[in-house]
Amino acid sequence: MQSWQLPEYIADILPSAARQLESAKEQLLALYRVHGYELVCPPLLEYSQSLLTRIDEGLSLKTIRVVDQLSGRQLGLRADITPQVARIDAHLLSANSGLNRLCYAGSVLHARPDGFLSTREPLQIGAELYGHAGIDADIELIDLMLKSLAIVNVSAPTLSLGHIGIFYALAEAAGLDDQQAASLLQLMQAKDASAVEKCVLQWQLSQQWIDAFIALPTLYGTQEVLQTARTILPDLPEISIALQQLQQICAAFASNSIFIDLSELRVDNYHTGLLFAAYSEDWPDALARGGRYDGLGKYFGRSRPASGFSFDLRDLIGHLPPVEKLRGIKVSVHDAPAAKNEIEQLRSAGECVIIDYTPECNEVKGCDRQLVWQNQQWQLIPL
Amino acid sequence: MQSWQLPEYIADILPSAARQLESAKEQLLALYRVHGYELVCPPLLEYSQSLLTRIDEGLSLKTIRVVDQLSGRQLGLRADITPQVARIDAHLLSANSGLNRLCYAGSVLHARPDGFLSTREPLQIGAELYGHAGIDADIELIDLMLKSLAIVNVSAPTLSLGHIGIFYALAEAAGLDDQQAASLLQLMQAKDASAVEKCVLQWQLSQQWIDAFIALPTLYGTQEVLQTARTILPDLPEISIALQQLQQICAAFASNSIFIDLSELRVDNYHTGLLFAAYSEDWPDALARGGRYDGLGKYFGRSRPASGFSFDLRDLIGHLPPVEKLRGIKVSVHDAPAAKNEIEQLRSAGECVIIDYTPECNEVKGCDRQLVWQNQQWQLIPL
Repeated sequence: MQSWQLPEYIADILPSAARQLESAKEQLLALYRVHGYELVCPPLLEYSQSLLTRIDEGLSLKTIRVVDQLSGRQLGLRADITPQVARIDAHLLSANSGLNRLCYAGSVLHARPDGFLSTREPLQIGAELYGHAGIDADIELIDLMLKSLAIVNVSAPTLSLGHIGIFYALAEAAGLDDQQAASLLQLMQAKDASAVEKCVLQWQLSQQWIDAFIALPTLYGTQEVLQTARTILPDLPEISIALQQLQQICAAFASNSIFIDLSELRVDNYHTGLLFAAYSEDWPDALARGGRYDGLGKYFGRSRPASGFSFDLRDLIGHLPPVEKLRGIKVSVHDAPAAKNEIEQLRSAGECVIIDYTPECNEVKGCDRQLVWQNQQWQLIPL
Repeated sequence: MQSWQLPEYIADILPSAARQLESAKEQLLALYRVHGYELVCPPLLEYSQSLLTRIDEGLSLKTIRVVDQLSGRQLGLRADITPQVARIDAHLLSANSGLNRLCYAGSVLHARPDGFLSTREPLQIGAELYGHAGIDADIELIDLMLKSLAIVNVSAPTLSLGHIGIFYALAEAAGLDDQQAASLLQLMQAKDASAVEKCVLQWQLSQQWIDAFIALPTLYGTQEVLQTARTILPDLPEISIALQQLQQICAAFASNSIFIDLSELRVDNYHTGLLFAAYSEDWPDALARGGRYDGLGKYFGRSRPASGFSFDLRDLIGHLPPVEKLRGIKVSVHDAPAAKNEIEQLRSAGECVIIDYTPECNEVKGCDRQLVWQNQQWQLIPL
């Protein structure tokens, strides 16, 4: 075991990638700013009970716990920032009865990686809109998600749409208890159609619910799926509304490639309605995900509509636009005191000026010019 | 216990402060960039043995530990970034035999706060120079530290100087064993002059070392202290060099207010030579600290000279220059689809445009103009 060795799925970010990441982050925060989203920075560490707002085995297993030396209570290292932002909207910003548009960019920690290509320290960036239930809010957020991906060089991603409200409406109408609903959702999430069928047959539901649950995993593809769903699925008001919302999203993003999957329900436990994600051909998993999580703030004292998206900027590091490396100007340590004013002027103009402490060794890298005293003045000469 | 309650010494950063912090961070990283410092982002989580390079009770007590679910080994949440950067210089960037100038900006976590006014989640920002032993490097870093403080609105701080090499030279010459040296250092750090005297008398050292150790806590004040030290302290080569280095720093920063304290040794365990810090009248503790830590990288496979400084940007949040709040332009949700092009043009020009979903309620805050269709064109009218 070497002292320099890092834990698995943990890595340093070295200079050129670090600059790319920082530059992309600055651009993303500027994007959110001109859309009216205010930046918040919740802490890395909170009481576990504040981070885990619902029984959510996935998030709970991901959350690293420690004992607080000051209170003796259990702390968690955040594995997701959304519950923290919901807390801020519900509590600290509760004086604002209007909409809150909030954004964030920060590291989260996972006890275990999500997959073989994942990191245990994602850089989660996202935007959230609190206080508006209308589908317009979701459209605004999907638009912002696609603009975010354009900044990180992902052009023309496929927009994938789902709606967990359909499943919940069916489960309630069919009279499933909480445990049944949870098991069935798990099978849907695993896309195990035959297990879904076996399960609903065994529960002896009435035929229309059996048909609906069995049909759900087949309802994916282009927009025509929405028409098919209207025919096949029972005529419940929640389902009509969900299908209509999906139709509106399709209309708003008609110029994008859209994929609909009514059984694509791999979501965070707090999601309640519309689900959206962006995929790219050269990427194994979703690049960004979002959806509705109305009522998440109830746990913190204010229940209201909410919608948002997030993504791991670190995961997209290979996609990031290159940041031009500043070609520096070197100046010998012997000249530096006399050239002080010239050096500071060059730096103010955005030039990188590096003091060369070993002019005889030619060790300073990355410079293409040198500041020297020639003809009675300081001059930049090419190297 | 409320669900929204945060642990002690842990806080959210809300919109206006978050923007200030982000903006200051961007300016600081831009400053380091034009001085040739490359950005690195080490991880929040590492094996504890990599974070704690030496026996350092202070850092060890601050470091929160968890068990790695993947390896079963002990992980630590970083309480300081410098050992990580030393690791990067020694290992990942070891191909570069020349100087490495590196900078970073990231959160660290402390199991307990440093003081009543401290946070347990400082935002540590710093710059480090590896590979040059000369005092020029320290001068470059002090200059960069003072420029950093100017960016966060601290003008004309007092530059405090010390040198731990003097104490170590005395301890070695007097033949103190490691335990004695450590105890005495602790008393010096606590500025307990009478305990220092009692201690050295009891050890029956020869008179010149007794005199020197007793004198050390009295050697503070303006530059004249250096002259006094030359007279009082034994004529050891390391002490002469240290005093000469301090003299050079004083000359280089002659226009600054300077305070010298040869017993100001409250440093990280890895410091080896020159120590510097910046103080401001309206601040209880140092605003920024730095110094030499030659050889820190040895633990990671490459020992070489190193010097650097860091500070907690979060601690300075009250000092940060205000960031102008963008006055927004609101546009009714009914107009937004038709005004799409105008909206995007305004945003590209840096204007914040906010869609108003409830035009009848007048709920959108922070806008001073509205985009409306008048006289056959989109116009901005004041609110």
